Amino acid sequence: MSVPRRVVSTLRVRYAETDQMGVVYHAHYLVWCEIGRTDFLRALGRTYAQLERDGVYLAVTDAHVRYLASARYDEEIRIETWIERVLSRAVTFGYEIHRTAPAPPARLAVATTTLVALDSQGTPTRLPADVLQALRDATMPSP
Amino acid sequence: MSVPRRVVSTLRVRYAETDQMGVVYHAHYLVWCEIGRTDFLRALGRTYAQLERDGVYLAVTDAHVRYLASARYDEEIRIETWIERVLSRAVTFGYEIHRTAPAPPARLAVATTTLVALDSQGTPTRLPADVLQALRDATMPSP
Amino acid sequence: MSVPRRVVSTLRVRYAETDQMGVVYHAHYLVWCEIGRTDFLRALGRTYAQLERDGVYLAVTDAHVRYLASARYDEEIRIETWIERVLSRAVTFGYEIHRTAPAPPARLAVATTTLVALDSQGTPTRLPADVLQALRDATMPSP
Amino acid sequence: MSVPRRVVSTLRVRYAETDQMGVVYHAHYLVWCEIGRTDFLRALGRTYAQLERDGVYLAVTDAHVRYLASARYDEEIRIETWIERVLSRAVTFGYEIHRTAPAPPARLAVATTTLVALDSQGTPTRLPADVLQALRDATMPSP
Repeated sequence: MSVPRRVVSTLRVRYAETDQMGVVYHAHYLVWCEIGRTDFLRALGRTYAQLERDGVYLAVTDAHVRYLASARYDEEIRIETWIERVLSRAVTFGYEIHRTAPAPPARLAVATTTLVALDSQGTPTRLPADVLQALRDATMPSP
Repeated sequence: MSVPRRVVSTLRVRYAETDQMGVVYHAHYLVWCEIGRTDFLRALGRTYAQLERDGVYLAVTDAHVRYLASARYDEEIRIETWIERVLSRAVTFGYEIHRTAPAPPARLAVATTTLVALDSQGTPTRLPADVLQALRDATMPSP
Repeated sequence: MSVPRRVVSTLRVRYAETDQMGVVYHAHYLVWCEIGRTDFLRALGRTYAQLERDGVYLAVTDAHVRYLASARYDEEIRIETWIERVLSRAVTFGYEIHRTAPAPPARLAVATTTLVALDSQGTPTRLPADVLQALRDATMPSP
Repeated sequence: MSVPRRVVSTLRVRYAETDQMGVVYHAHYLVWCEIGRTDFLRALGRTYAQLERDGVYLAVTDAHVRYLASARYDEEIRIETWIERVLSRAVTFGYEIHRTAPAPPARLAVATTTLVALDSQGTPTRLPADVLQALRDATMPSP
């Protein structure tokens, strides 16, 4: 038995991402999620940059973040990204964000974002067939 | 009959807030929500800046945004903020974000954020009594 | 005698703009300058949004900021913007950024940015004649 | 003969860093410079995070960026950082920012930032002796 595919991204907290509370400002977690799903698509062999050049845009229609612990400047962060659900015109990504160093490892946040595929006019459209299939394959537990 | 208090904030979309899709990058809506709740507290006669000087910090523990339409550079935005729920150590704000000009008026997003009160050590603490009362009063429909 | 035209913009410091030093992160001053020159163009009767719709883009080629004092969360900021120099394909804006309240008024920064006009292919191009004239008129001391 | 030490940082352009012109918004280059000098200090065996824990803050007093070419989403960026000048209370860093892939390699920007050492009260102070010496050593061409 197995689990759906997870893709790992890593980054280091930038000074610019902190706020006067001394921790990462909460909106930046959505930027980290974007890094996670960019890397997820790249791991499937398709970059989001290519997708846009082919005239397909993914617009966020729903974002939900639960914050469990704070991240601080210069800490090392690991983002795990997976597919929660795929439809022909929309995909929901799930994320877990962890601190790995130097403070004790901790789960900092869990999040989901739903993105809808749009053409260059902003009209909802189907995901390209190969992307759709790759996303579906990544969702399935291996046999 | 009446409804709980809503506070209105306005802003104009900054070029820095757009992304290459030509619309406001989704994470910035959380910044606009922060402007909304800052103005909400100010309308209650208490600023968030004062709250921090008194040693009480409000940390976001949950954020949820549903995106309904896109905002573009230089558009005029109206944020309506209200209280969804108040507990002794936490408060949930609700938000509606609208474009008011120059494109046709539209509701762009609805959002909620939950914030927990922390002391300077990061330990959950009760909201100051006067703030708690003001938040509760703002939640109640007037008779 | 008189001086070249100055246009005033105002804003309030956002929590998102602070960093863990408790002051506004220095890169945000460039965003404030962008607000200043957007308002400057609007005061001349031409918006930057229109300029882009007409196929003329202004790309920053040089930015210089001297930081004199710190800005803090929720402070009221005044940006004064003027034209330093106009060429047929480039314009240099000057800025002074002040805190006006609630801490004692202070000059926080002076800055200049040079922007070059580009067409939609990214090729340097002349500023539209009416914009060029308006910028030149704004540079001249009134008689 | 030799040249002063240069430290290399790499990153990939985030979607959040683009603007509606389809390129990286100019203010983000200052964030990249901050990543460069953070890595520079780390390469000297001293982190900026430690410096702050020891009560020494580095505040930017001057920033100058010349933009030579545009960066785009998902491109790979290399930042080279070096010391331009060291005084007992201030240090000036120099930066060159290059695109390395996938578009043809190009120099995107050159920049300098001057930072002054402050104590926790915001008063200018001397850099710690070991940091000062390490910065001076890094400035010298090797014999």
